[in-house]
Amino acid sequence: MTFERASREELIARAKGGVREAYFKRDKLLIQTVGAITETDKAANLLFERLREWYGVHFPELSVGEPLKYCELVLNLDKKNPDLDELKKIIGEQKAREIASKAGSSIGADLTPADVDEIKLLANGIIQLYKLREKLDAYQATLAREVCPNLSYLVEPALAARLISKAGGLARLAVLPASTIQVLGAEKALFKHLRSHTRPPKHGVIFQHPYIGNAPKKQRGKIARALATKITIAVKADAYSKHFIAKELKEKFEARVKNIRESAQTAPAQRV
Amino acid sequence: MTFERASREELIARAKGGVREAYFKRDKLLIQTVGAITETDKAANLLFERLREWYGVHFPELSVGEPLKYCELVLNLDKKNPDLDELKKIIGEQKAREIASKAGSSIGADLTPADVDEIKLLANGIIQLYKLREKLDAYQATLAREVCPNLSYLVEPALAARLISKAGGLARLAVLPASTIQVLGAEKALFKHLRSHTRPPKHGVIFQHPYIGNAPKKQRGKIARALATKITIAVKADAYSKHFIAKELKEKFEARVKNIRESAQTAPAQRV
Repeated sequence: MTFERASREELIARAKGGVREAYFKRDKLLIQTVGAITETDKAANLLFERLREWYGVHFPELSVGEPLKYCELVLNLDKKNPDLDELKKIIGEQKAREIASKAGSSIGADLTPADVDEIKLLANGIIQLYKLREKLDAYQATLAREVCPNLSYLVEPALAARLISKAGGLARLAVLPASTIQVLGAEKALFKHLRSHTRPPKHGVIFQHPYIGNAPKKQRGKIARALATKITIAVKADAYSKHFIAKELKEKFEARVKNIRESAQTAPAQRV
Repeated sequence: MTFERASREELIARAKGGVREAYFKRDKLLIQTVGAITETDKAANLLFERLREWYGVHFPELSVGEPLKYCELVLNLDKKNPDLDELKKIIGEQKAREIASKAGSSIGADLTPADVDEIKLLANGIIQLYKLREKLDAYQATLAREVCPNLSYLVEPALAARLISKAGGLARLAVLPASTIQVLGAEKALFKHLRSHTRPPKHGVIFQHPYIGNAPKKQRGKIARALATKITIAVKADAYSKHFIAKELKEKFEARVKNIRESAQTAPAQRV
């Protein structure tokens, strides 16, 4: 009986160990996903630059801000007989008319349909990469909400994933002080500061947070520090207690941001 | 009547000019294709490195030389129940058995099917890039045979395309001396030679030619010089006369290579 009980407890302990291990392996998966997204982006950009140059031999006047739209135009636009309705569907009426008129007076080389087909293959490859990125993004969000629900609630899943990736794992992020988290991803600026006494960085990847990125420059450091402090609390909850405390944390953070904004308005002279 | 004749001649001249221009624009297309292939390679390699690391969380023991086969295995292998027949189709019997046995004792993490599905998306993206590269390769060969039939016959279309790309166009390649063509693509080594008096490079991209790449080190310089000389003749024919003279050129080049090889064997002492 005693033996049996001991064995049962031992089994439970082992099972727990297994669960823990599996849990921490999922943050490794999250890191892989962050890497895959970064590299898919890089690959798509690399090929898109080439597409623009290559298609530019044929239609150098075509300028469209969004890469995906550009790819779709390469696939669907016939420069000699631009189909306005087709163009409108992709890019809207005004821009469609502009492109159709540019196509008429283009100084680009006339290519054979076979030549254009090859450029279309490349455009199609790029679109596939964009679609891949979208799917990986969605997966990254699901995974981040699972691995670090508090952090994902506080700062959005994509940023939570990048923070874990920069730290090298959930457990490692959980032991970092707020001051390190604040400049995570700004290592280059930080070491330049330590070496050459330039100004220290105010924020690393957390700059992606809209409250920091959209704040006036002078408030950014304060908001970044406030956010980094809340992140340490959220990530400790994710790694150890597993309680969901992020709602309260977020409210406190927002109150602090409000406070920073207000004091900047009431006492502008002191902040110079 | 005189006026009419003048006008006719003028029209012909203009038409010729147009043809020439169009002709030289096609070498610009060839350069774009070379770039697109290089970048598709880069993108595929970048994503493949990530795939290996990511799938390595699940099955670190899987080692396959060919990237394409690795991607196919990621798509089709169920690590818990490896289907030997499926594996054989991809990688042959011996390797299939090896992988199945490794799968049984793998120390990799157990992932959910949803996790593995995301890795499969990436593997599929990479396979698409390999397919794109294959199609671009075929197009590059067709285009090179059209733009520079002599050069493509003498050194294979892929190398002909790279030479034109390195020179910046057919017309520019046609005016380069043999000594420059010999080291085209080895600019780094060449400038190091000029700056630091290291040994000059013996060959640039023409090293890709099997006669040079497979030759004993001591014969490479001689063969490279012989090939570069023939290339100048071939490319001048492509750019100006348009006569097909490459068959004769290739025979002469091969005779010269035979000669170099034989004299290396009969008088080894003199070549040290």
